[in-house]
Order: sequence, then structure tokens, then C-alpha cells
Amino acid sequence: MTPVELSDPVARVNAPLGIGDVLAQNTRSYGAATAVVCREHRATYEDLAARVARLTSVFRAAGVDAGARVLWLGQNCHRFLEALLAAGQLGAMVCPANWRSSAAELGFVLEDLDPVVVLWQEEEIGALVAEVRANASPEHAGRTWIRHDGDGADDYEARVAAASPVAGVSAVDPERPLAVLYTAAFDGRPNGSLLTHTNLLTQGLMVAMMQAIDRDTVYLNCGPLFHIATLFVTIPTFQFGGTNVFVRRMEAEELCRVIAAERCTRAFILPPTINEIVSVNADGRHDLSSMQSGFDIEGWNDMVAPDTAIWGTRPAGYGQTEVLGLVTFAGLGGTPGDFTTGRASPLTSVRIVDDEDREVAVGAVGEIVARGVTVGAGYWNRPELNERRRRNGWWHTNDLGRRNADGTVTFVGPKLRMIKSAAENIYPVEVEACLESHAGVREAAVIGVPDERWGQSVKAIVAVQPGANPTEDELIAHCRINIGSYKKPRTIEFVDALPRRGGPKDYDALDARFGGGGYPGSV
Amino acid sequence: MTPVELSDPVARVNAPLGIGDVLAQNTRSYGAATAVVCREHRATYEDLAARVARLTSVFRAAGVDAGARVLWLGQNCHRFLEALLAAGQLGAMVCPANWRSSAAELGFVLEDLDPVVVLWQEEEIGALVAEVRANASPEHAGRTWIRHDGDGADDYEARVAAASPVAGVSAVDPERPLAVLYTAAFDGRPNGSLLTHTNLLTQGLMVAMMQAIDRDTVYLNCGPLFHIATLFVTIPTFQFGGTNVFVRRMEAEELCRVIAAERCTRAFILPPTINEIVSVNADGRHDLSSMQSGFDIEGWNDMVAPDTAIWGTRPAGYGQTEVLGLVTFAGLGGTPGDFTTGRASPLTSVRIVDDEDREVAVGAVGEIVARGVTVGAGYWNRPELNERRRRNGWWHTNDLGRRNADGTVTFVGPKLRMIKSAAENIYPVEVEACLESHAGVREAAVIGVPDERWGQSVKAIVAVQPGANPTEDELIAHCRINIGSYKKPRTIEFVDALPRRGGPKDYDALDARFGGGGYPGSV
Repeated sequence: MTPVELSDPVARVNAPLGIGDVLAQNTRSYGAATAVVCREHRATYEDLAARVARLTSVFRAAGVDAGARVLWLGQNCHRFLEALLAAGQLGAMVCPANWRSSAAELGFVLEDLDPVVVLWQEEEIGALVAEVRANASPEHAGRTWIRHDGDGADDYEARVAAASPVAGVSAVDPERPLAVLYTAAFDGRPNGSLLTHTNLLTQGLMVAMMQAIDRDTVYLNCGPLFHIATLFVTIPTFQFGGTNVFVRRMEAEELCRVIAAERCTRAFILPPTINEIVSVNADGRHDLSSMQSGFDIEGWNDMVAPDTAIWGTRPAGYGQTEVLGLVTFAGLGGTPGDFTTGRASPLTSVRIVDDEDREVAVGAVGEIVARGVTVGAGYWNRPELNERRRRNGWWHTNDLGRRNADGTVTFVGPKLRMIKSAAENIYPVEVEACLESHAGVREAAVIGVPDERWGQSVKAIVAVQPGANPTEDELIAHCRINIGSYKKPRTIEFVDALPRRGGPKDYDALDARFGGGGYPGSV
Repeated sequence: MTPVELSDPVARVNAPLGIGDVLAQNTRSYGAATAVVCREHRATYEDLAARVARLTSVFRAAGVDAGARVLWLGQNCHRFLEALLAAGQLGAMVCPANWRSSAAELGFVLEDLDPVVVLWQEEEIGALVAEVRANASPEHAGRTWIRHDGDGADDYEARVAAASPVAGVSAVDPERPLAVLYTAAFDGRPNGSLLTHTNLLTQGLMVAMMQAIDRDTVYLNCGPLFHIATLFVTIPTFQFGGTNVFVRRMEAEELCRVIAAERCTRAFILPPTINEIVSVNADGRHDLSSMQSGFDIEGWNDMVAPDTAIWGTRPAGYGQTEVLGLVTFAGLGGTPGDFTTGRASPLTSVRIVDDEDREVAVGAVGEIVARGVTVGAGYWNRPELNERRRRNGWWHTNDLGRRNADGTVTFVGPKLRMIKSAAENIYPVEVEACLESHAGVREAAVIGVPDERWGQSVKAIVAVQPGANPTEDELIAHCRINIGSYKKPRTIEFVDALPRRGGPKDYDALDARFGGGGYPGSV
């Protein structure tokens, strides 16, 4: 590997660091500190750098170069972080696949991502991986597949042990993508969201500020690493010289054991798992007192320490993978208990706009658009979609929000479909939320029906609460009062239950049954 | 002004924000919050943006365009921040001059910086400004000089009031310099350190993290704005929607009055001023309880609140203007009470190197070099110096440091001169610190004297403590034991007191008197 060239533009002294630079710096600043723990494996930052130097050679030999992709078909493991660091040093990127997906979904990701190397796992998901590989095109089945959890001569550990460490690291353009996270897509196929070195490392500062991450942080990677909400804490824990502890996946008893053994201080654990832990650890045999948690859940509070970081009382905000998880932070101005209201990070501009990208008035619902250093680099291999989402120099989130009088932004819902009535834009999700706030309504769906005069008119389909009997007029009046007359349904149909496709409401079925159509088609 | 062009590279959705973008965003996020307070002037973020939009027009009309310079010949004032924002939106930069300088020094800055607009102040420094202008070249005397604190038709307020606000703001390359701070130079002339939008706004996050800056912060700008230690808090206070309060300069009674009136929470106030405040406010007539301070000074502690931020117990670190004030942070690993030991920010790489830029061993003294997004853009109009300071892709600080076993870095002293004895580099400051650690030594200076065999040999000049009587052998042995044999002085001369030039030791006088010379000349 050639050393940094002075003529290289990315070698300018004030270029942002790449993740490989951070690793090199951490061997100086935190060399003897524990960087990763994963089952029996423990490594200091120096150990980690030594392993990554070898893995980088393995990757290079397999043809991983700038812009290449590595697919991680495994659960949580320190080797994922190693892969990210090694690929990052080569200007390549790593995609942690969703191992809960079907073989068909993973097959799509494999063909779409076109990775040079696939790192896969036998434990628990071996059969799934085998199915993906068996169904893959010859081209992809024939790439370098390396089992990360095996002890064979071709497996990860043997290859790393046999490789020579790279001699030096060339400067990597930190604007290159480093991670690819596939997000559920509303247009029928998942899209790989590209997150650059600068994206991840700069957002790392914001997350560190909110969560008070420092070198004493011991972060339990128990949420899935293919989810930005897990990964965006892994990175600052690494940046600030803390310890990343990995467990394969969420399992209450195992979490308790590892939290107690490693004195973990932070984790992404949500109430369902918390309730399991409270039950599993009812006798208090696991000491979880190192864990800081802001969730106020009975039983849990007695086991863990309060989260004294900003995050403890004002976690989250609004975001999506494509904007590095959060583009507004509740910690910059939300109210405790409201996880989706916050202010833009100082690194980003956030506006609420109409369909012509004009900023709407305070209080009005519009699309949330953003620009700034923590906006991701678009989607892998989707030039047209990228152009559309980036139109006019702003990232269009496809999500709806509203600016409040105090300058905060509240997430309203996904901009799935829009109804256009006369010149007015009406977002079904807003009308539905209003209807569902009525005591007599269990659930509501709103569609647009073609209207000769207005283009479309609003129709609501409502399932009432057991024993309730709200009238059409009553519900229409409720909407007129609360969200404005032009958004109120013209007509309401009552049904026993809304049709659903898995979780989401099935709008196509509703359109078909109740005559919906004429949408301006904004997605 | 043309709107953002899609083809403009700086218009990419994930470009870092410029300071104008932050102002625009703050009108959305914090519009009604108080942005600045300066004597009778109070402005919300919306007010501030409105004034800046007019000032931007004033600047444009005066010829301020991308890369142009504006000179601020005034003390602390909200109008300096306005100038920074207006210039920043035009891609121009502002230099806050050191108003404590002589007319000759300011004249040098004027000619060197070559500003298009000079904003000047009558109060207290009017005579100084008049002298600078009278002595200026016709070219510079004839530029647009605008008095910021006058009420005439050509003065700042009248011009701003008469101007139309700019209609829109074009995208500014955030890698452009925004501020120019002249630093004392060891080579005989001051150099203007260039700090970019990205430099200032990214370092702002680190400072905000260390000082817990948020929208409730009320920062008293009382230290000089031409000093990075003041300015690097002004910026995050602005970024996070807090309030910047300005006083013209440090004056104990006025500070007390303003802290009490505005409930200021943070300020850059050092012990000499603190002692004055303790004396001035001995009767407690000013309520200073809003101010957070980590200084443990008798009397002061009873007046102010403890600083609960990381900065409260571990302020500072090592830095210089050229690396945005701090490149290592005590808050990332220093020990309380030691203000010059810390770890590199996660945004930078920091190494300790020898003269060939090879990293030296842990414990060895070498030059501190750095790279990363908070390293400044070099010096205005100093291409050769910039090339030298940036050699091999690292910013050379001209300061000496040592990496400790725990990965922290300790500042040792400026690399003023180096002695070369055989192949060994010997830094006078290190030998002096060793000598001065001896109980019998009051002060010491170390010079190199030409040596036929070794190139140079080490000579120390020592003034002893009253009543003490250390011998030459004893002091040489003290050095051999503590810093290694090759650095020990070969000979020691005893003097009553060291010659000094103002504060610093006068090495030229010592060389002349004791035969110093033969330096490799590293600066």
C-alpha cells in the first residue's frame, strides 16, 4: 500500500478523518483499552488494529478495492466491526444484511449489492445462507464466501492468522460510502442507503453528546447492526475509545449475563425486551446496576441506573437511515415523553416544504427535507431515485412533519400517498390521526376519490370502538374543528376492521372497494 | 444573489453547512430566542438574520465578495458577529484585530490582510485607529472605513438601516476561510491564521460537548474576540441557539453587572479577573449565581455555581489558534488540575514526531503534528510558510509534546530552538524544565554552543534560589537522572537573573554572552 501522497487532495491536513485514521489514532490514544468484547474474544485497540491490518490483506487479496462491497450475512459480532474497519481502509463498504429476512429478500440484496466478498455465519442462520447461495447467480455464488464463525482453513480466523498485516494505509476519501444499510422501500424493493465515513463519524459526535459517550462507555451491541439505531452508537463508542460488546442477538438471559459480566453502561433495548429482562431477572441474580436507562418501567428501575445523559430524558427525535438515524434531536428541544419532536442538529438544515419545495407555514404539514453533513450519500445503484430524493439540493425524506411555534419539528407520518383536492394537498395520515383521536374510533383509513370539480375528494373508512356509535356528521365535524375544513372527509364509510397487508393498512384494497383513485402520485 | 444551483458542487445535499446556513436554520429552530445582547441592543435570531441580510447588502456594495477580507478594528460587540455572518454568506472572511496592539502592528495587519472594508470603533480606541489610518498606504486609507459605534449617516447603523436585505443566499463553499486571527510569530511578524466555516462549526461541536452548551447557554463574550479561546465558545453558543452577550472588554464591575442582568452562564474569565471580581463584589450586591465556573478560588465559589460540564473539572488541553484552539482535550483523558494534558479529539489525528516526521517513542519529546477537520487552513498570504508547516500531510505546530503511557499527550513547550548534539535533538525547554524542578534553581536557560566533535553541546545558565547553593555537578547529575545523559548540560554558568525581552527569556543575549551558536535552525 502506498503512503499518503502530498499531491493527493484527500491528504490535505484538514480533510476529515476516515475510519481507518480513527483506528490508527486510537492505537495511540487508547492503545491498551479494551476495544471489543464478543463471547470469549477480547481485544484492545492495539489488538484490534493488528487484526484489522491482517484482514485488510485478506480483503485486498480477494479483490476488495475502492468502491467495492462486502456483504455481512451474520448476526452481531466483533468481526463485523473488523470488516467495517478493513473495508473502510480500502475505500470499500460493508453491508450488514438483515438476517431476519427471507432467502428471497437476501438473494435480492446479494444481486443488487454485487459484493466481492461475503462474510457469512453458520450458527443459527446457516441454512438460510445456504439457501441464498444455492439460489444465487453463478457469478455471485462464485465470489469469495468466508465463514466468519468456523475453524476451517478457509474460514475467517484462519485467513486472518495467515495474512501479513498491510504495511501502511493510503488516504481514503472520507466522502466515500463506508456502510450500506438496506431500508424497507415503499416502491416495492429495498434500497441500500449509503453512509459515508464523514456521515458516520460526524453523526457520532452528536450521538456522543446526547448519550454522554466517552472512554468509560461500555456499549452492548444487542440491537441489530443492520439498524442505524444500533450502529450509530457503535461508532462513537469506538471514536471515543470506549468498549463495544457484542451479543449475537437480543435474548434476555444472555443480555443479563453479559451486562453483569462486562459492566455494560449503554444498550439499545426497548420495552418488550426490558419486560422480558425484568421477568428473567426477577430474583436479581444478575447485577445490572452498571446499565444506564431512561425507560421508566416497573422492576427495571430497581435493576439499572438512571440515564443522566441528555438522552435519558429526551431520547430520539426524527430521522431515517438515509439521514444517519436522526436529523432532529429531542435533546435539542423536545419535551420529555415525546420521542418524535426535536430540533435540527447544528450540522443540518431542516425544512418543511410543499410539493414545489416551498417552505410551508408554521403549523402546516409538509414533507421534511434536509441538507448537511449527516445526510447520507443516497442509495446504492439507484441513480434516478437519488436524483428525485435530492431534487433542488435537499434530501427529501418522504416523511411528513410540522414545525411548531417554538421552532421544533414534529414527525407526522410517512408521506405514503397524497390527496389533491382543488389546490390543496391532503395527507391521509394526518386525517387518520385526527379521526383516531376521536373516542369512538378504533382505526381509520383515508383515501381520495376522483371528483370532477375538485380533482379528488376525501373519503374516510372507519372502524368504531366496541360499543361506540359515532355518526358520520359527528366525525366530519371533529375533523373540521381540529385539522381544518378542507381536509375533512366528505364521506365516511364504516367497516368492522380495516384490511391490512401484514401490519400496514391496505390502501389498494380500500381504493378498489370504495372507488379511490386520481392521486397526483407523489412517491 | 442567485439561488443554489443544482450543478454547484457545494450544493450537494450532504455538504457541511456554512455559517449562513446555520443562521437561516436558527431562524426556524430558535427564531424568537435571544441571539445577542450588547449594551442596549437585544436581538432574537430572527432580528439578527434580518440585520445580517441588510449588512450583507452593505458589504456587497462595498465590493466584499468571495475571498475578500473585512477588518474589525474594534472591541467586543454584537456587530462583530453580524460582520462574520454577513461576510460568511459572501464567502468572505473577517479579521478581529488585536486592539491592544500598537499602531505600527495594526498597520502591518492592514497592509498584510488588504481588507476591502474596515469596521472601526471610536470609543476608547479612536485615536489608535486614526493613527493607523493616517499611516496607511493611500490604497488602504481609501478603502471603505465604517465606524461601527457612530450615529452618522455613513456609520454602521445608518448604512444597515438604509440597505435592502439580500434576497437569497448562494451556497458558500464551507472549506473557505471565515475568520482570520493573527497570531504572534516567532519569525518576527504576525501571521493571519485562516479558520474555515467547517473548522469553526465542527470544533463548535467538540466545545459544546465539553462545556455542555445548549440553547439555555448565555455566554458572556468578555475575553477578546481576536483570541480563539473566546471565539470558539461564541460559535457553538450560536450553533445551539443560545445567547451571546457582549461586553467591550474585561472590566470587573461591568462583568458583574452584565452577568447579573443577563443571567450569564458561561464566560472565559481567568483567575486575575476572578480575583478582581471577588474584590469588587465582596458585598455580594451583584447576583452572579447563574455563572458556572470550575475555578476553585476563595470567595468566588460562594458567588457562582459549580461548572457541572466536563470542562468544569477538566478544562482546556493542548492547542493553538492554527488548530482551532484545541487539538487535544483534557476532557478526553486529562487529570484534574493539569490543563495541558489530554487526548486527541475524535476529529483529529495527533502524533509526536522527530525532525524527519517519524513518530517517536512513548515518553520521548517531539513536535506535535496533527491532521483532521479542525486543523485550520494555514496562514493568509504565506505560501512558503504554509508549505513548511503542512509538510508530509501533517500540520506542524512548532510545539513540543510527549505521549504518556496512557495515550494522553502532554504539552512540553514551544519548539523555539533546537540543539543538535551528535545525532540527538535536544529541546532547551525540556532541559530547562528539569533544571527548574531542582529545589535550588530559580530559573534556567539552555543554549547550544558550537562543538567541533558533536556539532553543539549543551550549556545552561542558571539563577539560583535565594540562600541556595547548588553546584554545577549536582545540577548536571539531576538532569542525567531525570531526562537522560545526552540532554544534560555539559557546562553551567551561574547568573543573578536571566536576561528577558519583555516576558520571554532573551536567548540572543545569552548566546552573545556565553558563546551560543551552531543551531540547526528548525523554525
